[in-house]
Amino acid sequence: MANRKLGRGVALVGAGMSGFGVFPRLSSRDLFVQAYLEMLGTVDKGISPADIEAVFIGNFSSELFEGQGHTAPIMTEWVGLTPRPSTRIENACASGGAAIRQAILAIASGMHDVVLVGGIEKMTSLPTERVTDALTTAGDVLYEIPAGFTFPGFYAAMATAYMARHGASAEALMQVTIKNHDNGSLNPKAQFGTRISDIIASKKAAAEQKGKPVPDWADERAFLSDERANPSIAWPLRLFDCSPISDGSAALLLVAEDRAKSYSAAPLYITGSGQSSDAALHSRSDFTSIGAARRAAAEAYAMAGITPSDVGVAEVHDCFTIAEIIATEDLGFFEAGEGHKAVIEGCTRRDAVRPVNSSGGLKSKGHPVGASGVGQVVEIWKQLRGEAGRRQVPGGPALGLTHNVGGTGQTCVVHVFERRS
Amino acid sequence: MANRKLGRGVALVGAGMSGFGVFPRLSSRDLFVQAYLEMLGTVDKGISPADIEAVFIGNFSSELFEGQGHTAPIMTEWVGLTPRPSTRIENACASGGAAIRQAILAIASGMHDVVLVGGIEKMTSLPTERVTDALTTAGDVLYEIPAGFTFPGFYAAMATAYMARHGASAEALMQVTIKNHDNGSLNPKAQFGTRISDIIASKKAAAEQKGKPVPDWADERAFLSDERANPSIAWPLRLFDCSPISDGSAALLLVAEDRAKSYSAAPLYITGSGQSSDAALHSRSDFTSIGAARRAAAEAYAMAGITPSDVGVAEVHDCFTIAEIIATEDLGFFEAGEGHKAVIEGCTRRDAVRPVNSSGGLKSKGHPVGASGVGQVVEIWKQLRGEAGRRQVPGGPALGLTHNVGGTGQTCVVHVFERRS
Repeated sequence: MANRKLGRGVALVGAGMSGFGVFPRLSSRDLFVQAYLEMLGTVDKGISPADIEAVFIGNFSSELFEGQGHTAPIMTEWVGLTPRPSTRIENACASGGAAIRQAILAIASGMHDVVLVGGIEKMTSLPTERVTDALTTAGDVLYEIPAGFTFPGFYAAMATAYMARHGASAEALMQVTIKNHDNGSLNPKAQFGTRISDIIASKKAAAEQKGKPVPDWADERAFLSDERANPSIAWPLRLFDCSPISDGSAALLLVAEDRAKSYSAAPLYITGSGQSSDAALHSRSDFTSIGAARRAAAEAYAMAGITPSDVGVAEVHDCFTIAEIIATEDLGFFEAGEGHKAVIEGCTRRDAVRPVNSSGGLKSKGHPVGASGVGQVVEIWKQLRGEAGRRQVPGGPALGLTHNVGGTGQTCVVHVFERRS
Repeated sequence: MANRKLGRGVALVGAGMSGFGVFPRLSSRDLFVQAYLEMLGTVDKGISPADIEAVFIGNFSSELFEGQGHTAPIMTEWVGLTPRPSTRIENACASGGAAIRQAILAIASGMHDVVLVGGIEKMTSLPTERVTDALTTAGDVLYEIPAGFTFPGFYAAMATAYMARHGASAEALMQVTIKNHDNGSLNPKAQFGTRISDIIASKKAAAEQKGKPVPDWADERAFLSDERANPSIAWPLRLFDCSPISDGSAALLLVAEDRAKSYSAAPLYITGSGQSSDAALHSRSDFTSIGAARRAAAEAYAMAGITPSDVGVAEVHDCFTIAEIIATEDLGFFEAGEGHKAVIEGCTRRDAVRPVNSSGGLKSKGHPVGASGVGQVVEIWKQLRGEAGRRQVPGGPALGLTHNVGGTGQTCVVHVFERRS
């Protein structure tokens, strides 16, 4: 293991998730049970729950969404793991990634050998405007929110800055949407598992059936450029540039490296972990890059002893389409200002040189905030083990990366996973 | 170092806190800055902030109290430590203790050598009934809160169960109040730094001055038994059995053991750490003990290689007076059913065999939820270094313990600190 600083190596031996979507009859505890049970089924050689020594739960705001704090011991009880120590980690949309990092540290410290990581969020119980209010608490409520910012506004500011500096157009944003919906259409767990072309076809069919004028969208770009079909949310971001409001949960089983083979025939090794913080957006000098992501990536790459070109598949934090483009630059996949061209050229497609968000990403798969960073790892688990089915990245990637951003980039957590054959 | 499982030892080289109380003009960030600056001043040999590698923030619910989530990077920015990785830990009232544990694991893992731990809560911006609502989110909102429980109610249920089983009376609860106010009167940071006898004297003087009938309380017990002076909140708990609603922050500096002497002339060594979870109160079979506390204590004692009789000074989680009595049994200071007698006999006074809550405890010092577990360590730091001034425990204790409970005991975290001469 290439870790230069950790006391001992850490491996991933199981990964599962609930569906991501709108589940009116399920609470976050129900969703976590689904994720946990699916995870248990992925441990090749089986695991006795009695082996699990500790639990870390990534969750953004069960207080605001469900009126429930102190969620970690509740989740732990719900899967029958009381009295294991259980801790809730909150770093906004990076809560899941930060929880994974705590589990890694707990194992590397020697305190625990087998640790469960959960990510949860149940967002759809509230009306949309209250969800928007809850999400704004991930900004700076003293300096940003009173000025009228919401998250689409923050990322719109980043998009306009990026477009102005690099000459990018809405075309690049559209291509992120089209790609991620293509990928998501092959993911049975995705909230919006539908290709844009299929959405067009179904809207045309519906109009025809009702005897209304059939829209004349020639292709996806025409559809996504139509203000009626894809209304502006915060210019230049339109509806289809935004990840949805979602319910969902994901679960991972991490173990000490020397225990990996006793649980898994094909464990993944977590060879890099990076985390960095930043000021809130209002006091940053550059909106076209997320500094915390650049630093977290540099730390994870150094620990893993790799370069960006070694990454065979990446799940990045595309809460908005512009975020994916910026992420691919912050991670070093493309030079600054080249990410928007790369997506138009198809470089981040599933079958291209640098596959990004083969799961469909937050955009199509869904974005139950605290679960998203954990769900990213479920995709890497499947891809590196060759179990991603119809959305499998060709060539059998051996190294995968996750990039999980909190807020507008006040937190970023990057992890590197490797298969050893 | 007696740690049997950690990769390397961890030491405490600095500890500071803001005042605990009601500070209408200060936000949690302001309070954290105060705690951080005081902490820096306690590092004997000085520290460059550039040495600090990571930050963990214990906070219960800045979302509900201040409308602010994602607090960790904000606190980190406020003390000038951006872009250090910064993570918020939430385990209700045990958030502070859990944050300390994450810092220990981060150092023991080899990832970091120097870590800042903060605890924050700003509760008094909300009206009391909304604070009560916010605190109930630390219970089980599906099964307990709809039945009408609030936290005084939970602990009242524990108190009545304890009294019924062990024949305890309100006398024991009163003696916790009297002792902790005595201790708190010697703590300049305490929210209620007034002895009960002084409260009586001032109320008598006020009545006399206004020409009203002067109450005839003969002593503290008479005052605390008077329904007008000390009204019932949830029988048998009265006003003076409850910790207050507070604002406050505390900060600690933890370093790898081999770095301790380069920062501190008299570091403390964290030789034991224990954490355990439990189901919410409604599904526990015993209300007279907190199982998570017993398990966390057993883990911490085993790691430190000590027994309860080695503890020279302890800060325990007296959110209500009954909680302190139960804590002294769960920690093994007294047998089950003996804690109520021990406090009446004065065994937990500052100058007795087992000093408990020399700081005044949550009861008198104040209980800014996420800061409380960190603030406990500030007291142990002072006591073990002989810097507690007028409330110094005689004899120079060499070993101290903190006991931090979340909710009704769904989480408990116990830490052991040792001075080496």
